[in-house]
Amino acid sequence: MGVQDIPFAALKIGDKASMSKTVTEYDVYTFAGVTGDFNPVHINSEFAKTTMFKERIAHGMLAAGFISAVLGTTLPGANTIYMGQELSFKAPVKIGDTVTATVEVIELIEAKNRVICRTTVTNQDGVLVVDGKATMLKK
Amino acid sequence: MGVQDIPFAALKIGDKASMSKTVTEYDVYTFAGVTGDFNPVHINSEFAKTTMFKERIAHGMLAAGFISAVLGTTLPGANTIYMGQELSFKAPVKIGDTVTATVEVIELIEAKNRVICRTTVTNQDGVLVVDGKATMLKK
Amino acid sequence: MGVQDIPFAALKIGDKASMSKTVTEYDVYTFAGVTGDFNPVHINSEFAKTTMFKERIAHGMLAAGFISAVLGTTLPGANTIYMGQELSFKAPVKIGDTVTATVEVIELIEAKNRVICRTTVTNQDGVLVVDGKATMLKK
Amino acid sequence: MGVQDIPFAALKIGDKASMSKTVTEYDVYTFAGVTGDFNPVHINSEFAKTTMFKERIAHGMLAAGFISAVLGTTLPGANTIYMGQELSFKAPVKIGDTVTATVEVIELIEAKNRVICRTTVTNQDGVLVVDGKATMLKK
Repeated sequence: MGVQDIPFAALKIGDKASMSKTVTEYDVYTFAGVTGDFNPVHINSEFAKTTMFKERIAHGMLAAGFISAVLGTTLPGANTIYMGQELSFKAPVKIGDTVTATVEVIELIEAKNRVICRTTVTNQDGVLVVDGKATMLKK
Repeated sequence: MGVQDIPFAALKIGDKASMSKTVTEYDVYTFAGVTGDFNPVHINSEFAKTTMFKERIAHGMLAAGFISAVLGTTLPGANTIYMGQELSFKAPVKIGDTVTATVEVIELIEAKNRVICRTTVTNQDGVLVVDGKATMLKK
Repeated sequence: MGVQDIPFAALKIGDKASMSKTVTEYDVYTFAGVTGDFNPVHINSEFAKTTMFKERIAHGMLAAGFISAVLGTTLPGANTIYMGQELSFKAPVKIGDTVTATVEVIELIEAKNRVICRTTVTNQDGVLVVDGKATMLKK
Repeated sequence: MGVQDIPFAALKIGDKASMSKTVTEYDVYTFAGVTGDFNPVHINSEFAKTTMFKERIAHGMLAAGFISAVLGTTLPGANTIYMGQELSFKAPVKIGDTVTATVEVIELIEAKNRVICRTTVTNQDGVLVVDGKATMLKK
């Protein structure tokens, strides 16, 4: 995975980048194991059947991790200081879903080298699963 | 690991819960592997030396994952629908740091079963590394 | 994941705690990779077809690991010195089974701060897959 | 790792086999992640300093996993039904310790194809860290 490093001066409103991954049981279980997030909706299929989701779903923060991946490797890429992230979890990511995390530059504050991006994650059916906004400092 | 499930009616402003983990190279590399966040500041020690951090740091979203773990397993626990999260990354988490993620109920909106928590992550020296706010729907 | 730490004096006969997880191929392969337990019944589906189990099964010691998780994080929780464990493997855990590890305090020896628990693991059909007894020293 | 399969008739009292591994932070964190055993003595170095061990130690059940590995891959090897295991945790395994799990046939019950082994785990200084006994059914 090639890592870009786009200087602040080269960024433009509307610049976009994304990455996609099919979220597997492996991803969900590994994420649970690293964070300790053993919420049964993620790792207990019997419990999950009793929820509105009917099956195990991925951690919202795993989907958010894909946003971080695009920001830190592609747009704006390396040498980005991640300052803040707003996340709105709109719909579940089920095991087997293929999600696309997209970031789009929506504001550039030159005085402070601030980059503001809209950050979304959608699934294979185009459903918006995570919406939000990232604030970064870019060299 | 016992998972709690605190009903909305039993929650009170000021309720608090936390978890702690020493963040290791293993955590950072595993998180990188699952999300694809190969930002060199996380997985390239030569690059990291050239940054203001001087060494590899953990992904902010990994620290956020510990917040999610506390919310989904302890307070309010299982049967929580995660609706939103605001994150402000204040200071880096270095490999070897021991972080504590804490959630505290700051608002309860009865009409809609909404729970608002302040969510923080601090390190072993008491430095606030992540600040923020979570919004949940609790059965 | 909040970790409890129940002082010896607060423990009572009959106290119970449990955790549940759907055991996946990921769990079995990861456990195999860490321990080197490449017994083909766990990681070779062609071989497993020739056994009485007909398919790959989880390591008994993985199921035992869930017992250890409940003991060390919930009941009695942190500051427990694990002294001994008897395990009786009663039935296989198949990939996809959801197991529940339960510990129940059955004896308290005050002179030596010893805690004895019955430890069981059952599957989603209520079948007892592991039975046993744990001996601990609790501060 | 070649897997043996020693028929019951070929087993003799005194037969011995072992495996060794240096236990790393990776092993401990992976085991914690799969089992959910986030007991702070294993994954929180600040907490561990306050214990009699002074540093993070490995899960006892991870050491037991090495016993299972020897039983299931070497002696008696594949086609062994693991019936029971007694474990006595004698001393801690620290991160960086090199442990050797040894199994030795101590009893053979022909009428029922039962194999009884003494099972021990020692560290690089020859300290006995786990003692115990395994009961198996061997084809």
